[in-house]
Amino acid sequence: MTNHIIITISRQYGSGGRLIGEKLAEALGIPYYDKELITMAAEQSGFSREIFERMDEKASSSLLYTLSINPGMAGGLTGVADLPLNDKVFLIQNNIIKQLADKGSCVIVGRCADYILKEYPNCINIFICSDMADRIRRITSVYGVSLSNAEREIQRYDKRRANYYSFYTHTKWGIATNYDLCLNSGIIGIDASVQVIKAYVEGRKAFLAK
Amino acid sequence: MTNHIIITISRQYGSGGRLIGEKLAEALGIPYYDKELITMAAEQSGFSREIFERMDEKASSSLLYTLSINPGMAGGLTGVADLPLNDKVFLIQNNIIKQLADKGSCVIVGRCADYILKEYPNCINIFICSDMADRIRRITSVYGVSLSNAEREIQRYDKRRANYYSFYTHTKWGIATNYDLCLNSGIIGIDASVQVIKAYVEGRKAFLAK
Repeated sequence: MTNHIIITISRQYGSGGRLIGEKLAEALGIPYYDKELITMAAEQSGFSREIFERMDEKASSSLLYTLSINPGMAGGLTGVADLPLNDKVFLIQNNIIKQLADKGSCVIVGRCADYILKEYPNCINIFICSDMADRIRRITSVYGVSLSNAEREIQRYDKRRANYYSFYTHTKWGIATNYDLCLNSGIIGIDASVQVIKAYVEGRKAFLAK
Repeated sequence: MTNHIIITISRQYGSGGRLIGEKLAEALGIPYYDKELITMAAEQSGFSREIFERMDEKASSSLLYTLSINPGMAGGLTGVADLPLNDKVFLIQNNIIKQLADKGSCVIVGRCADYILKEYPNCINIFICSDMADRIRRITSVYGVSLSNAEREIQRYDKRRANYYSFYTHTKWGIATNYDLCLNSGIIGIDASVQVIKAYVEGRKAFLAK
């Protein structure tokens, strides 16, 4: 086992989790994967990029096929042909996430990466949340969402991410014990959040170096 | 509003939360309150210390009285006389926790302090968890619990703390969004956990200093 570290980031919508992931990767000098996973999945699978964008972090609407889904089977993408499109997308991204984790240190945002890599002892799982008022401030100023739509938009995205997570992992999104570190980024902001995660990474590296 | 900081620590049994709290208080040079709350509650109330020890972090067994309980009423301990003993203990400790928070910076472990102080903007709420294997290792070596009883003992304490928390706060124990920082202490250990919390405290102090 090499001593490289994979950091997965789950994030509430508007919590700044994506930006924290980007800045953390930059500070640690390691690659960062978020939307990049879509491009890679499209390239490797031969499916169009539009399909991955449309299905990104959405749970399957068909319960019928899901009983046989096991992330472990995604290695060679066997059995994928008969599955609903969302599940194909999940399994293809599952495969890519494992390839990236095998290759070296990186930061991966979303897409149940914490669950997909749960057998990797060198994986650090982070959950970023923030209070509603801070998230509204963030998405209205950064994403240009109107104030009147902001809270509804946050609830819609959070619900989608929570459904996606529980659908494929059979556990709940945002339960502290599912992560190594959960952080409310709202009061302290992006840069201080990066510092907190870096302190955890240092502790983990010290453990791995023993 | 002064710039002092109150740090509350909720902790799974065997996660080392108490020791992390102690070391954090020492590192920050501020007082630490855990079992000390029992002594203070006994002194202020005139009840015996044994009552507080027996009722400590236990939910009331009587649902009948709880509908009228509101932590806000505990200020002058009015209306306490007619309540079940657990609720009296909760309200007396509630009162003491608020007195301590008003007085200056400190670390308070357990007893729903995060909820009791939820209107305090200078309060940092931490949840410490750890994997079962690490917790078993900890309570067998530090508390001398036998290996055969360890897992059952952990489940018993966790259930009691979760019940106590949900009974008095009407929310769930260990949900990431209820805290500023949740930390799995198991892999990185006590000292590195203290460093992570210190990094968060630095971020919060910088925000308060703005």
